[in-house]
Amino acid sequence: MDRRSFLRTSALGGTAAAASTLAAPAIAQGRRTLTMVTTWGRGLAGVHDAAQRVADVIGAMTDGQLTVDLKAAGELVGAFEVFDAVTSGQADMYHGADYYFVNQHPGYAFFTSVPFGMTAQELVNWYYHGKGHQFHDELGQIFGLKSFLAGNTGAQAGGWFRKEIKGPEDFNGLKFRMPGLGGQALGKLGASVQNLPGSEVYQALASGAIDGTEWIGPWADEKAGFQEITKFYYTAGFHEPGAGLSVAVNREVFDSLTPAQQKVIEIAAAEAHQWNLAQFLSNNAAALRRLQSAGVKVLEFPQSVWDAFGKAAQETLDEYMSDDLFRAIREDYLASMRESSGWLQASEGVYRRERDRVLGF
Amino acid sequence: MDRRSFLRTSALGGTAAAASTLAAPAIAQGRRTLTMVTTWGRGLAGVHDAAQRVADVIGAMTDGQLTVDLKAAGELVGAFEVFDAVTSGQADMYHGADYYFVNQHPGYAFFTSVPFGMTAQELVNWYYHGKGHQFHDELGQIFGLKSFLAGNTGAQAGGWFRKEIKGPEDFNGLKFRMPGLGGQALGKLGASVQNLPGSEVYQALASGAIDGTEWIGPWADEKAGFQEITKFYYTAGFHEPGAGLSVAVNREVFDSLTPAQQKVIEIAAAEAHQWNLAQFLSNNAAALRRLQSAGVKVLEFPQSVWDAFGKAAQETLDEYMSDDLFRAIREDYLASMRESSGWLQASEGVYRRERDRVLGF
Repeated sequence: MDRRSFLRTSALGGTAAAASTLAAPAIAQGRRTLTMVTTWGRGLAGVHDAAQRVADVIGAMTDGQLTVDLKAAGELVGAFEVFDAVTSGQADMYHGADYYFVNQHPGYAFFTSVPFGMTAQELVNWYYHGKGHQFHDELGQIFGLKSFLAGNTGAQAGGWFRKEIKGPEDFNGLKFRMPGLGGQALGKLGASVQNLPGSEVYQALASGAIDGTEWIGPWADEKAGFQEITKFYYTAGFHEPGAGLSVAVNREVFDSLTPAQQKVIEIAAAEAHQWNLAQFLSNNAAALRRLQSAGVKVLEFPQSVWDAFGKAAQETLDEYMSDDLFRAIREDYLASMRESSGWLQASEGVYRRERDRVLGF
Repeated sequence: MDRRSFLRTSALGGTAAAASTLAAPAIAQGRRTLTMVTTWGRGLAGVHDAAQRVADVIGAMTDGQLTVDLKAAGELVGAFEVFDAVTSGQADMYHGADYYFVNQHPGYAFFTSVPFGMTAQELVNWYYHGKGHQFHDELGQIFGLKSFLAGNTGAQAGGWFRKEIKGPEDFNGLKFRMPGLGGQALGKLGASVQNLPGSEVYQALASGAIDGTEWIGPWADEKAGFQEITKFYYTAGFHEPGAGLSVAVNREVFDSLTPAQQKVIEIAAAEAHQWNLAQFLSNNAAALRRLQSAGVKVLEFPQSVWDAFGKAAQETLDEYMSDDLFRAIREDYLASMRESSGWLQASEGVYRRERDRVLGF
């Protein structure tokens, strides 16, 4: 997934933003409406759904005393203007992927996904029972935001290739679309990394302008139609192993809410995380089956490639370690990941491997 | 985990139940209090916490307009009386593990855990985006309940043994504590299955009355002290691979709530599922590390044992297939599990295996 891809429905974004004035939360007859801007085009499968879920649940739980007016990318501000819109008070809250805001602070990457980072389950563990939410809040204090996890795509797929990848040298000179820190890491393998908006990827792949691409997972990838052009699909990738989505509320607005309304937002966001992760899982499973029936060859990268991914991912993250808060977050994140991974491997991991073997899954 | 173990603080349960009268929900000054009974002794780590989380979040989100008065096992009725207490209207809702109520209907087993069944993540997928919640509701309609998932222990450990298990024949004649359908399955391997309450397990193990036991996982097991007696610990078990906990509300009471209050209960329960699963994961990881430092040998059952577990689990579930609703639930559950497992294996499973290898986890 990437930033610019969600702009396809947001051509008016800049104009609308320029024309709008600072919107104070509407308070009438005890009812209050918060304006939520998002980094997603209206209707974009999964990610827009998570934002809509948060909005719907807040309204339903408060019987409309607190409602959320969802403005998709371009309806009030453009996708990448949401951070500034909320910190400045132009909008009350945003729903988006916080790694879009690594230029504001590189620590935001951890609250979506970093290469060779946490799965969704490990992220939840760190976020709610480790220091994750605390660090998210520390970042928010810098910018006047109150942030909550509020969605997750699950592990994103490695992507689509014209031919099998047999070793890390096959990435040398490969024109491949991958945004973010994952893309930076892939560049270290010699790939010519492109950051095309989603709306242009199919055409670029068809014309040969790029050799391959990652997107999200079978559900979204199938909709994009990449299986019509490329037949080698790597379901496991290293770049976004459990991409969290976030809600961030302008801190002054949040502080002006009642404790009950604050709790409603917190719990609606957390519930959306679980609901959305399962939504992606559910749809990915069915889509993968269809892709396989349609002749797509599902493969795993060889160990030599994973070794190279791992080295490149570490080097990429190392480049940000001069920032104290980034360093503190990364060290705590790694310690938590090591510990939760150990238990998951020893319990559920062993169980699932043996169950699936015995049942012939 | 088992039923009777949670009765240790509930000696007064029967008496209290007999003395109480039918309690109507308290409605005063627009405020309403629901009485929640649970199958857990007050303070029991993890499981009581999930019930308390639901109660606290409901109260906080409604600013006390809807509050939950939590009565732990024995405080109003005994642990296994909660189902009848809520169907009869003596209490408004319960928090518990629904497989305690397989005598009411065997289909309830699927909403906690069945041997060789779903992991927590697969259960969430089936429950919120497949037919899981629909089937749970269908069972509830029979008994006048409205049910929601509201907690999860994660995959439970295989348990504690005095010596290494080298093949399924090592279970022949072994005196082992394991309740429920898992225990029934283990009996098919020739084990002498005991269903001791938790409070008696340590003593039974120390005296040699039993040769081994399962309990929940490292966090709870360490508290029970089994590592003082037995040193062989199998972290992966077949019997409860992702034990869901539930909230069930008396259906007439639920129908009398406002739509907003109904939504508050639904979302509070769902949020507790994610929060509690992560709570167990977080604590299990740390406890496993301590157990290993204390000299506990962490092992995996060999494939021959998993094969035998699988066969016994299938046979146990087959025995309930004459019930049409059980059959319908099982078939849908299996289809969902096969599909979600396929995607998890191909994406997150491969990723985690390679990441952990490369990072040396």
